[in-house]
Amino acid sequence: MVRHKEVMKMRTYMIEKVVLVASIFSIVVDASRYIHRPDGAGPRLWSLPIQRSFVADDDSVIRLWPMPSQVTRGNSSISVSPNLGISLLVAGLRESQSSAIVVETFTRYKQIIFRHFESDPAKLNPIKVSVDSKQLYLDTIHVNITLDDDDLDFDTDEEYHLFIPSDLDTEQAYLQANTIYGAVRGLETFSQLCIFNFTSKETEIRSAPWDIVDSPRFKYRGLLLDTSRHYQPVEAIKQVLDSMAYAKLNVLHWHIVDEESFPLEIPSLPKLWNGAYSSSERYTTSDAREIVRYAKARGIKVMAEIDVPGHAESWGYGYSDLWPSSTCREPLDVSKNFTFEVINSILTDMREIFPFGLFHLGGDEVNTDCWSNTPEVKQWLDDNEMTAHDAYVYFVLRAQQLALSLGWQPVNWEETFNEFADMLDPRTIVHNWLGPGVAPKVVAKGFQCIVSNQDVWYLDHLNVKWKSFYTNEPLLGITNATEQQLVLGGEVCMWGETVDPSDLLQTIWPRAAAAAERLWSPLEYTSRLYDEVETRLEYFRCLLNQRNIAAAPVTNTFARSAPYGPGSCYVQ
Amino acid sequence: MVRHKEVMKMRTYMIEKVVLVASIFSIVVDASRYIHRPDGAGPRLWSLPIQRSFVADDDSVIRLWPMPSQVTRGNSSISVSPNLGISLLVAGLRESQSSAIVVETFTRYKQIIFRHFESDPAKLNPIKVSVDSKQLYLDTIHVNITLDDDDLDFDTDEEYHLFIPSDLDTEQAYLQANTIYGAVRGLETFSQLCIFNFTSKETEIRSAPWDIVDSPRFKYRGLLLDTSRHYQPVEAIKQVLDSMAYAKLNVLHWHIVDEESFPLEIPSLPKLWNGAYSSSERYTTSDAREIVRYAKARGIKVMAEIDVPGHAESWGYGYSDLWPSSTCREPLDVSKNFTFEVINSILTDMREIFPFGLFHLGGDEVNTDCWSNTPEVKQWLDDNEMTAHDAYVYFVLRAQQLALSLGWQPVNWEETFNEFADMLDPRTIVHNWLGPGVAPKVVAKGFQCIVSNQDVWYLDHLNVKWKSFYTNEPLLGITNATEQQLVLGGEVCMWGETVDPSDLLQTIWPRAAAAAERLWSPLEYTSRLYDEVETRLEYFRCLLNQRNIAAAPVTNTFARSAPYGPGSCYVQ
Repeated sequence: MVRHKEVMKMRTYMIEKVVLVASIFSIVVDASRYIHRPDGAGPRLWSLPIQRSFVADDDSVIRLWPMPSQVTRGNSSISVSPNLGISLLVAGLRESQSSAIVVETFTRYKQIIFRHFESDPAKLNPIKVSVDSKQLYLDTIHVNITLDDDDLDFDTDEEYHLFIPSDLDTEQAYLQANTIYGAVRGLETFSQLCIFNFTSKETEIRSAPWDIVDSPRFKYRGLLLDTSRHYQPVEAIKQVLDSMAYAKLNVLHWHIVDEESFPLEIPSLPKLWNGAYSSSERYTTSDAREIVRYAKARGIKVMAEIDVPGHAESWGYGYSDLWPSSTCREPLDVSKNFTFEVINSILTDMREIFPFGLFHLGGDEVNTDCWSNTPEVKQWLDDNEMTAHDAYVYFVLRAQQLALSLGWQPVNWEETFNEFADMLDPRTIVHNWLGPGVAPKVVAKGFQCIVSNQDVWYLDHLNVKWKSFYTNEPLLGITNATEQQLVLGGEVCMWGETVDPSDLLQTIWPRAAAAAERLWSPLEYTSRLYDEVETRLEYFRCLLNQRNIAAAPVTNTFARSAPYGPGSCYVQ
Repeated sequence: MVRHKEVMKMRTYMIEKVVLVASIFSIVVDASRYIHRPDGAGPRLWSLPIQRSFVADDDSVIRLWPMPSQVTRGNSSISVSPNLGISLLVAGLRESQSSAIVVETFTRYKQIIFRHFESDPAKLNPIKVSVDSKQLYLDTIHVNITLDDDDLDFDTDEEYHLFIPSDLDTEQAYLQANTIYGAVRGLETFSQLCIFNFTSKETEIRSAPWDIVDSPRFKYRGLLLDTSRHYQPVEAIKQVLDSMAYAKLNVLHWHIVDEESFPLEIPSLPKLWNGAYSSSERYTTSDAREIVRYAKARGIKVMAEIDVPGHAESWGYGYSDLWPSSTCREPLDVSKNFTFEVINSILTDMREIFPFGLFHLGGDEVNTDCWSNTPEVKQWLDDNEMTAHDAYVYFVLRAQQLALSLGWQPVNWEETFNEFADMLDPRTIVHNWLGPGVAPKVVAKGFQCIVSNQDVWYLDHLNVKWKSFYTNEPLLGITNATEQQLVLGGEVCMWGETVDPSDLLQTIWPRAAAAAERLWSPLEYTSRLYDEVETRLEYFRCLLNQRNIAAAPVTNTFARSAPYGPGSCYVQ
């Protein structure tokens, strides 16, 4: 354990130094941002010329993100009717219990696709315009879904088949999927194909016919959101969920609480959210359910976390017995049964909110000094003939059993595996973070694994560029097919120390999209760094901007920094 | 003219130096942002303690922004029914032509006020829950509007009177206004009074009864948005409009085109938007009308600008005859009648889109070297016995006449006043920007004036803090009451060189709010820098965050920079 911490500290130190030097350089380059607008006739105060772009018209590039598994296309253009409708069959039925999510998704995308048409806000469906009666328009998507089931869990199938014809006289558009969530993914792809033509004033699909057969490479494609270091309002989380759906990410790992604050209501222990930053930086259980509902409507699962015992100081603001002592507050007091009663109550209340089959129990960065140095706890260790490390193992395993008894498969950060793999419940999913090279060891021992190596998949590392996110291969060093199956996927992590609603989206995007494509698209595509990938990512970041997601410039020296001067979205 | 430019250049140079030094310092302080999440048990890598906040519970402070003209309040709390309704009378009628905007506004605020209640997205009105039948709730606002008229122009009255009772048994809530736009302002104030109580799970209004009589100090309270240096998608502009309404700003000064790009469609001259950055970084006339409609629904007027002749290089990408020559492209060619035909066509097409009575013709930063150095233009100057400066005057005045003939009152940047005040049409509104002290000279000559002195009201000056925005007094140095009336108000300017959709809102907010209060609230309030103002601004920035507006921390060293470490929204 010490070894890992030392490595991490050294790495952090080196990153800081590099960043510091690079930042000073960046400020010099970026001095233009502090000036007045340019003197109209004088020399420009930034050194690079104004950048225009023709990327938006380059049909040689497939402007879909992430790249589908199989694409064939032609060279015709068709027009899409602003009165576009959906013809939906679920399990062969026109009326079905699970169709609502598909209809809602279609309505949402319609508003995105036809945003250049004037709307009438008084109407529920704002877009209804007359079209040229002599021209043929794509006016219906036929959607056919096999299963009438809106359950969303770990194994939910996301495959879809999308066909867009080039000859509207004889053919129609089809979207086929096994589940409603496959259809949700297919509608996202459809929406990205629809491009508004500013000359004809019509929405068109170029390069038709399109025949797309698509499914994800990994079934777990996550984003961690930390709402403890800064509170993120429900509306901000919803925007993160919107943006995740655009990149086909499918798990929101909600790192709800940590040592800094405890924003979530736990009805059975109402004083826990005394640990919130303030009386309003809180989530009610209704808020949390609303987030789960909103995520589900986008095919996104919500994995909640309580990070025990090491990241839980804020719990004690409501129940100070959880602290070893008032001056030594972390990890949670292992010696009291009360501690595990609290964990059980939290998990029981959370089980009502979070239906997803995985639950994250943390377990990282546990410094046991407070246990060894607090007389009462030290006495308990001695009475039970435990070292502090034994107690750490005991704590993690006991928490796992509580989660398992509620029907959850536990996820733990990798320290638990690194330090006592052989004692972990075999159902444990090991969540890598310290660095690369962990997954091969995890799967060799038969555990499932989620990859989040911090060197390249931590979004709070502002000096890590999109290419490093993109080239991180979860199966690196794993050749055995059975072992490969144990890598469930990966997750980018948005730790919240310097992220509040003012900079959340631009810290996440566009870099999270690079990981999203790595996790969705075939290895044959993502393992060759085509020049076109950066062009496609520029295009996707502009698409996010058009959809009101504040994705930052792709090629900045540091994530979330401002564009350095005037220019087209497509080349910054 | 030269004098002003020299002063400006020197000022710019000094700002750059100061900013550079301060930035390096800031990076050192902010190194924490580049690290991994804190080691749970080790020392924190940021030096300040975690900040908790009790501002949210401090009822001694009036948590309204901007501060109303007259407020009295009590010390009771009432609960607001989530089924809150509106009882609307316009000119004494239940049904009226102009009521739609009030109903739409009410519906919008209801979604904001009750955001902690679970919603059913299938329903148009998502909030309908049962309430405790034994308790009294505020369930209706009686809104009474004098004029049945939805016209919105320069003189539109925004006064309102809002009464919230403390005894629901005998009294009801009333909102009285002369116009629907006064009611729109009053509903914003009402929405800010509604606070969700996380303990009772009810929305409540504390410190009732409230009796608020409110009207703005200045009738022009603007924000300039530059969509030429970076294209801002329609959705981004709509979010700016949302946020402006929250701060009761009422003019969007849309600096649509400039030398870098020409994004707007001009139907009569379809090649003009060849000057757009790309085929998709464009606004159709429908887009522009939609922006005007969306603004109007929030009581916001849209003042369009074409900045002639000095900021118009991009026009020539479609019509190169507008350039003096292909190598000397600015200002617009004064010698050709075609130039004025183009301006007239643009204005004629824009008149169909922008109903507001003011139109901005720019006129700043005109370097006439291209006129003197291009043989054909020089010949024309000689033939007409004009100096280059004479031609500048001629250009501005001729453009003014075109705007006037379309029924617009022209606005020009202050250089036109500084250099040839006596020749300007007396209806000219002079827009100050170069520095303080201009307004007294403008109004002494009998012109109307808009104040935007760049030293403190330019949002792209990232080193200017909220207090400098707040203390900028538009009437400074003007004691004569008649002259004071000529100061229409002021405007903060969001020039777009380093602002795209990824950093637009956090560069505007919260600093624009400081100017908004200066322009709305009584001088007696804003001229004394109460300690409470910063507390109120912290609160307002958190309110913006809760409403999905990415307002940056209030107390940062530089605008739009990240929070420096974990903590409550209310103290960062």
